[in-house]
Amino acid sequence: MFTFLERLELACESHRSLLCVGLDPDLERMPVDDVFQFNCAIIEATSDLVCAYKPNLAFYEALGLEGLGALMRTVEYIQKVAPGVLIIGDSKRGDIGSSMKAYYKAMFDGWGVDAMTVSPYLGKDSIDPLLSYKGKGIFVLCRTSNESAGDFQDIMAPLNGEDRPLYQHVALKSAQWSTAGNVGLVVGATYPDELRTVRELCPKLPLLIPGVGAQGGSLEEVVRWGADSRGRLAIISSSRQVLYASSGKDFAQAARREAIKLRDGINHVLSLEGKGWSLS
Amino acid sequence: MFTFLERLELACESHRSLLCVGLDPDLERMPVDDVFQFNCAIIEATSDLVCAYKPNLAFYEALGLEGLGALMRTVEYIQKVAPGVLIIGDSKRGDIGSSMKAYYKAMFDGWGVDAMTVSPYLGKDSIDPLLSYKGKGIFVLCRTSNESAGDFQDIMAPLNGEDRPLYQHVALKSAQWSTAGNVGLVVGATYPDELRTVRELCPKLPLLIPGVGAQGGSLEEVVRWGADSRGRLAIISSSRQVLYASSGKDFAQAARREAIKLRDGINHVLSLEGKGWSLS
Repeated sequence: MFTFLERLELACESHRSLLCVGLDPDLERMPVDDVFQFNCAIIEATSDLVCAYKPNLAFYEALGLEGLGALMRTVEYIQKVAPGVLIIGDSKRGDIGSSMKAYYKAMFDGWGVDAMTVSPYLGKDSIDPLLSYKGKGIFVLCRTSNESAGDFQDIMAPLNGEDRPLYQHVALKSAQWSTAGNVGLVVGATYPDELRTVRELCPKLPLLIPGVGAQGGSLEEVVRWGADSRGRLAIISSSRQVLYASSGKDFAQAARREAIKLRDGINHVLSLEGKGWSLS
Repeated sequence: MFTFLERLELACESHRSLLCVGLDPDLERMPVDDVFQFNCAIIEATSDLVCAYKPNLAFYEALGLEGLGALMRTVEYIQKVAPGVLIIGDSKRGDIGSSMKAYYKAMFDGWGVDAMTVSPYLGKDSIDPLLSYKGKGIFVLCRTSNESAGDFQDIMAPLNGEDRPLYQHVALKSAQWSTAGNVGLVVGATYPDELRTVRELCPKLPLLIPGVGAQGGSLEEVVRWGADSRGRLAIISSSRQVLYASSGKDFAQAARREAIKLRDGINHVLSLEGKGWSLS
């Protein structure tokens, strides 16, 4: 059985892609009414271009039981039409041990995702129940992509005699918690300097990097600083730029065009760095 | 229209109680199979004794769509048989603005809860969308009840020239964010010293205090340090001690006995402090 890290490597190799598409259905922007139908069209148009899909649970929960039903069917659909492509449940859960065990059950056994995002605020208790799930992974929120990320994540505190912002404490702790290649970090594309620092601190951890596109992250910096020394272990995620590339009937084709642009853009930077796929 | 703080005061006054029962259904411990049926029995047995119920979303999500359906029916049932009793969705959500907006929609418009717990890690962006929800409230995770709470929450960093642990930074920021009596804090009953400090720092914020009972928090210290100067603004929550007081057919009566013991225990401490209900 593969570890999560091995599954991630395979997913990237098979499509020669570090691109992840965020499946965040927004009824106000979707050109069709049905979430599952919308997701299927996006997936069909992009599944050969990505290493992962990342549904953010918030958008499904906002649509109630029907939305969550659409999430379940979407996961099944990805597993059917794009086996090997990872599904990352962007849920940002974080709770005490007994509750976190229930969240892992919900995400891994219930919705059936391969990985999920986890908030670090409650510490190691939120991570421990992961150990029962071989082959599954988590991405711990480290430096998020939003404007107020620094409110607490930039608070400076000493660690081993050196002052470091909180997000670096989280990065270093998470590296310790990754006992089976199953813990990565979330670092927003909108903060390239912090991304660079996290990559230096954690050369072997997979990084989930949201915020490319609508949120304004620069693709070139993201690839340069986010990928590891081999040009891997970065999952570069875009949601709105791909999903809502067109508000017309051609939305799926437009999404494919954007996804190709992003994947090729990423691979171009990798090539410039001598880390393209042909060398691997 | 009442503010959240006013609604909380009314809920406590009407039953002369600071007690909250956590509705965390665990199939392995429940004496009946059906979550909704179990919750109804617990609610029927305790609704005159509490100011709030606190379903933790994790336990419903772990049961899939059926579990979430039971949550929805439970909320409706509380609203019907115990109007005025607050429903706190313990979801510990925290995301960027656009996603958080979706989470608030899910919790307040969808499941229909009156308040929810929110993780502070992403900063103010996770709080801002609350402003659209008049009368609703949030409790920001400050010092949680679990063993590894201190992993990050105790990290010391300067604030206005004084070294303070992170949870105090969160407490003071949250107090600033409470523009309409709508932001409180979560402080675990298992850390009475920290509870005392938070109450001193934030004399006017409601505190949600989980961890009494199974998690080991002392009721006397919790009431003494958690309540405000009038003996109010503390929501003292117990889950397992009440829900699983008996594993037999008498589980509802046993839950009622435990709830009475807790409510009376809380009120006894308030009386000793000269803050009992007869004085208010």
